[in-house]
Amino acid sequence: MKVNYPNPSLNNLKPKKIKSYGMMFEEALNISNEYYRIQDIAYIYKKPTPIQVVKVEYPSRNKAKIVEAYYKTPSTTDYNGIYKGKYIDYEAKETNNLSFSFTHIAKHQMEHLQKVHKHGGLAFIIIYYKKINKVVIIDIIPFMKLYKLGLENNEKSITYTKALEIGIEVKLKYSPQIDYIKALDEYYKL
Amino acid sequence: MKVNYPNPSLNNLKPKKIKSYGMMFEEALNISNEYYRIQDIAYIYKKPTPIQVVKVEYPSRNKAKIVEAYYKTPSTTDYNGIYKGKYIDYEAKETNNLSFSFTHIAKHQMEHLQKVHKHGGLAFIIIYYKKINKVVIIDIIPFMKLYKLGLENNEKSITYTKALEIGIEVKLKYSPQIDYIKALDEYYKL
Repeated sequence: MKVNYPNPSLNNLKPKKIKSYGMMFEEALNISNEYYRIQDIAYIYKKPTPIQVVKVEYPSRNKAKIVEAYYKTPSTTDYNGIYKGKYIDYEAKETNNLSFSFTHIAKHQMEHLQKVHKHGGLAFIIIYYKKINKVVIIDIIPFMKLYKLGLENNEKSITYTKALEIGIEVKLKYSPQIDYIKALDEYYKL
Repeated sequence: MKVNYPNPSLNNLKPKKIKSYGMMFEEALNISNEYYRIQDIAYIYKKPTPIQVVKVEYPSRNKAKIVEAYYKTPSTTDYNGIYKGKYIDYEAKETNNLSFSFTHIAKHQMEHLQKVHKHGGLAFIIIYYKKINKVVIIDIIPFMKLYKLGLENNEKSITYTKALEIGIEVKLKYSPQIDYIKALDEYYKL
């Protein structure tokens, strides 16, 4: 599929920091996904945060007001959807350190991503190394290999260099800011 | 893929009403999806209901208590996931009437399902006709055809007979109660 960007000249403007746009990584991802939808490229959404509603009031007839509720642990990953006929599923994480700690990913999320891979979907983790303003995608299979090796050798995190070795860099630009679909094309030969 | 049910003899026990198990259609669907996950057949989840959180309190240090929040309109459909390498996306609806009114499906949901179809996913609506205890799957394409015809001819709903004509019946049994994956195999020749 050919991807036409509305204003190619803007694509070369590289932001120094995602932060400099006044938005965090997740917001930048959400806006990038919105861009892909508007351009009819991919339909990928962030799942709403699961909330356990305990008490609801009705101050006016038409509006339910939740007055007691609690955050729940998500059962899967943050994002899923479809691109080029493929089921896409990923977890997005950012780190303040130069190395991404494995503890940032919950075990049930790793398991979920492995199931997705086994059933023919594209399952990966997308990591934002905030300090150096770099984004990398790592497929769940090499990620798990590294994770298991790490358990044996007491290595608890992935440096950016190591991430690049087994994953692929996502170029940051103007619009979409995090053009990870382009990176997926190359990484997975789509 | 061969599907082995844990206790085949139970599969022949057909509940007279889904209700008789003390659960509603959505709950029965959720439990069926859980069954598919446990059996490693499909990974399909209900998306959490989106909630706009306005105010959070911290009565104890570790627990955030949401004290003001409102329900938001979901941007997509209720369920999505992966089966046999395919992206699956559907909306589940039940009706108390013998005919399913088109007004039950929001326009942006119909549009979303058409996009999914266009991009190679399986997009459909699953309807539970409560009165007659029947469940039908209708692919979004014949559904939209009927919807458009309906607009021209002032027909605002789909009878069960019509639904069967363009869709496929989902057999109700013991476990999984709503075995729609089996119906998908036949309907989409998977």
